[in-house]
Amino acid sequence: MKILNLEQIKNILPDIDLIQVIENGFAALSQKRAVVPPVAELLFKDPPGEVHIKYGYIIGDDLYVIKIASGFYNSKEPGTSLNNGLMLLFNRKTGQVESIFFDEGYLTNIRTAAAGAIAAKYLAPEKITCIGIIGAGIQARLQLEYLKSVVKSRDAVVWGLNEKELENFKNDMTGSGFNIKTTLDTGEVAESCNLIVTVTPSRKPLLHSEQIKKGTHITAVGSDIPEKQELDSKILQKADMVVADSIDQCLVRGEISHALRNNLIKKEKLIELGEIISGSKKGRTSDDEITVADLTGVAVQDIQISKAVYKSSKS
Amino acid sequence: MKILNLEQIKNILPDIDLIQVIENGFAALSQKRAVVPPVAELLFKDPPGEVHIKYGYIIGDDLYVIKIASGFYNSKEPGTSLNNGLMLLFNRKTGQVESIFFDEGYLTNIRTAAAGAIAAKYLAPEKITCIGIIGAGIQARLQLEYLKSVVKSRDAVVWGLNEKELENFKNDMTGSGFNIKTTLDTGEVAESCNLIVTVTPSRKPLLHSEQIKKGTHITAVGSDIPEKQELDSKILQKADMVVADSIDQCLVRGEISHALRNNLIKKEKLIELGEIISGSKKGRTSDDEITVADLTGVAVQDIQISKAVYKSSKS
Repeated sequence: MKILNLEQIKNILPDIDLIQVIENGFAALSQKRAVVPPVAELLFKDPPGEVHIKYGYIIGDDLYVIKIASGFYNSKEPGTSLNNGLMLLFNRKTGQVESIFFDEGYLTNIRTAAAGAIAAKYLAPEKITCIGIIGAGIQARLQLEYLKSVVKSRDAVVWGLNEKELENFKNDMTGSGFNIKTTLDTGEVAESCNLIVTVTPSRKPLLHSEQIKKGTHITAVGSDIPEKQELDSKILQKADMVVADSIDQCLVRGEISHALRNNLIKKEKLIELGEIISGSKKGRTSDDEITVADLTGVAVQDIQISKAVYKSSKS
Repeated sequence: MKILNLEQIKNILPDIDLIQVIENGFAALSQKRAVVPPVAELLFKDPPGEVHIKYGYIIGDDLYVIKIASGFYNSKEPGTSLNNGLMLLFNRKTGQVESIFFDEGYLTNIRTAAAGAIAAKYLAPEKITCIGIIGAGIQARLQLEYLKSVVKSRDAVVWGLNEKELENFKNDMTGSGFNIKTTLDTGEVAESCNLIVTVTPSRKPLLHSEQIKKGTHITAVGSDIPEKQELDSKILQKADMVVADSIDQCLVRGEISHALRNNLIKKEKLIELGEIISGSKKGRTSDDEITVADLTGVAVQDIQISKAVYKSSKS
């Protein structure tokens, strides 16, 4: 049994072509080559917290993967959360534990950022005026970092809850290669940027339909449980294309679930990211379209990133 | 983080009053003091295998528990399965891993046997003629061992698939304190025993309604997925009392789920084991009754046994 800690995992990651690895996972999911049961979860109140168990396997693989990721209220730093978790790889013929990664939730953050880059690769307009980020936490930083490989623009407008959070963000991103403007008004992001990524745990919409201009792509990353929502559902109604990471999963969680419950979009209109990756469906077809990608976080991402780390750790 | 291997766990177990620990779990479940979401699972074909993820917490506890247990087809010893698994204990306020037990599925076997003893304690008739066991695998051995603490009879009739399996069983149980008769006919078990435990992975009924005499208690342990069935559903129809380890869980898996689907029993008739333990419902009221306990295996058992092992490992 191979046990890896966070430091070891961080050392291995640069050797992996993550975009490719995660793309292959989405393609497998859409081609029904992956078994990914519904997310198992524990939701805690008082103090609040969430635990997600995402698990499954790619058909034909000799491993199955169970990923546990948690977020708890941080009583020491209000407004932030304590993330943690681990990934477990098992032998598909015996159930033996092959490997455990004590990644403390890090690989979940990374595979989420990689999915954001993939959504932008296939759905963002040709020419990006600037990258808008709604949210200023860890995932906001990672999204920008991973977008670098698929987007040329190095201009970003970042929205946060308060000046302090934005100041920290700007400081942390010094040397990242991005020119960062900050704002407390999401409208400013929508006005100036045609690629927007939302990365908050908000339970009410932060972006509204009337703010969104033609030719904008939005990747919504924050909503992973039915209670969370970052986008006014009318944005999805207005969109020319609504893409799910997993249609099955987005029927019950994420932005799409809200829009479906409000009867603002039809299930039949939905496209899966893996269908675009594998070429069976088209991505963006013109620079005028409004496109939305709803990323709720799918076990295939965890399966793919953990397999890649495991393989690399043995080489 | 405390890591325990199977040997360490086996050394700790004798210090624990398991019957009490598991009874407390069932009582907590029935009194809604436990959070136990539906079982998460992976079912493999070719080669066949099952992985169950059972998880949750007792409200007010400072830990939550995720248990993974698997059974795979054993290509080396046909007819047997490879069991494996582990238990993970997490801090309920931070999501940090507090402890991992590499129990290889052992604690799942033990907490299952303890539940069998508890069912017999509350539901078996006063005077046991002999203990019938349908099945001759590991769980058959453990059920007899754990029944010792609640039942006086040391006579057992054991049914198995073939003479070889039964011979092995008899040899293994030398020195167990039981007089063991073996049979290839389940009718013989039903005829002579008034406490019967079924512990097979059968997908078709092994015991039939017309075989079951008045004053018999049956504990059905083997069926933990919807596809498995050990009892003819008419036995549940005929029974004076049908007890579930978890009513919610038995609606979709176990013997009760089959009887409900066939409209042979009513949901309203069901009693939960924890209701009997806590005294809010009565167990067996006369020696003439036929009673059935359907044990599908509930996360509260895993939570309770792992907490007890953890506590004992620190003392």
